[in-house]
Amino acid sequence: MKKVAIILSGCGVYDGSEIHEAVLTFLALTQQGASYRCFAPNIDQHHVINHVNGEVSEETRNVLVESSRLCRGDVEDIIELREQDFDALIVPGGFGAAKNLSNFAIDSDNYKVSEQVLNAAKAFAKAEKPSGYMCIAPALLPLIYPEGVKGTIGTDNATAALITAKGLTHVNCDVDNVVIDFKNKIVTTPAYMLASNINEANNGITKLVKSVLALT
Amino acid sequence: MKKVAIILSGCGVYDGSEIHEAVLTFLALTQQGASYRCFAPNIDQHHVINHVNGEVSEETRNVLVESSRLCRGDVEDIIELREQDFDALIVPGGFGAAKNLSNFAIDSDNYKVSEQVLNAAKAFAKAEKPSGYMCIAPALLPLIYPEGVKGTIGTDNATAALITAKGLTHVNCDVDNVVIDFKNKIVTTPAYMLASNINEANNGITKLVKSVLALT
Repeated sequence: MKKVAIILSGCGVYDGSEIHEAVLTFLALTQQGASYRCFAPNIDQHHVINHVNGEVSEETRNVLVESSRLCRGDVEDIIELREQDFDALIVPGGFGAAKNLSNFAIDSDNYKVSEQVLNAAKAFAKAEKPSGYMCIAPALLPLIYPEGVKGTIGTDNATAALITAKGLTHVNCDVDNVVIDFKNKIVTTPAYMLASNINEANNGITKLVKSVLALT
Repeated sequence: MKKVAIILSGCGVYDGSEIHEAVLTFLALTQQGASYRCFAPNIDQHHVINHVNGEVSEETRNVLVESSRLCRGDVEDIIELREQDFDALIVPGGFGAAKNLSNFAIDSDNYKVSEQVLNAAKAFAKAEKPSGYMCIAPALLPLIYPEGVKGTIGTDNATAALITAKGLTHVNCDVDNVVIDFKNKIVTTPAYMLASNINEANNGITKLVKSVLALT
């Protein structure tokens, strides 16, 4: 059974992991006969968004604790993620990837990936193990693969330009498709950067999961 | 296009809607060509559970606001739910059904369904429109259908006995199957009352969604 690590960033599209993307990743992995374990940083969220009105709330929430809602409690601190225990890595999207795993949403010209996430993701790169990044999560790629990497966030040219400025070779991609960088073993799909409904997201995510597992 | 109303109860298995069950319901409905809108009570959650350690948190969270995370912000107050606008109703499980939609988890001998939820669900019953209830949500059924109703929460005899005491005719059911009460047009499936992984839950939920739509 192939074993996949998943990095979560909270629970909710506007301040954490996109819930549909995370759940559809779990479903596709299970349907493909792979196992998975979920990890998240044990840090405060950048902020908490009321998803009804889009306003910033006064609350403080922890990324690890909120991520645990997505996996029925079964989440581990990302500092415990040992690449040796896994065949591949997958990072769902949602603004959490751009607010809690990196600060792309806050400082898109000079953004950084958080050190714990960078260490975990780079370990998979160094071991030449495949990884999948969906939605806005490919923004992390040029900082993980500084020698050059190919990927997609869909067809949003303005956002793509911010990431290409860091070194990503961006390829436009439809919602039901993936872009594969075979050299780096990286699979990306637009998911909710483009999806107008959950089934469209599911088609791309299922293809991403199959492609990542095929690269192991 | 068939239109389905979904009642959510928060966002997380221990204090709200079971996330996988809600998302898999959205997926199955979309794949079957149906549309859906989500509703939730605009009330405080019974409590907030830290899903990492299971402890009750000091926080206060609103059921409507947390439910909105599940549907990317697109949720409506349950008092706005007009049965006339829909062909069917579906209620996912999670402890939210037993803590926020009813008080089954708090007072299982004398539990009640909240008035807003009861009004909404009874409108579908009166109009003879089909409904689907999964996981622990069938605990609500005997109070919505006081003339008698058949359903399942899986194979947990102790829990089933608490609901049969209110009038449910309980039928044991495997995780990948459904129980259908054709007289009342009610479909139930055990979902995470029995599922040991997300694909098992998906098989039962997909069957529930198809069965509900077939009854419209």
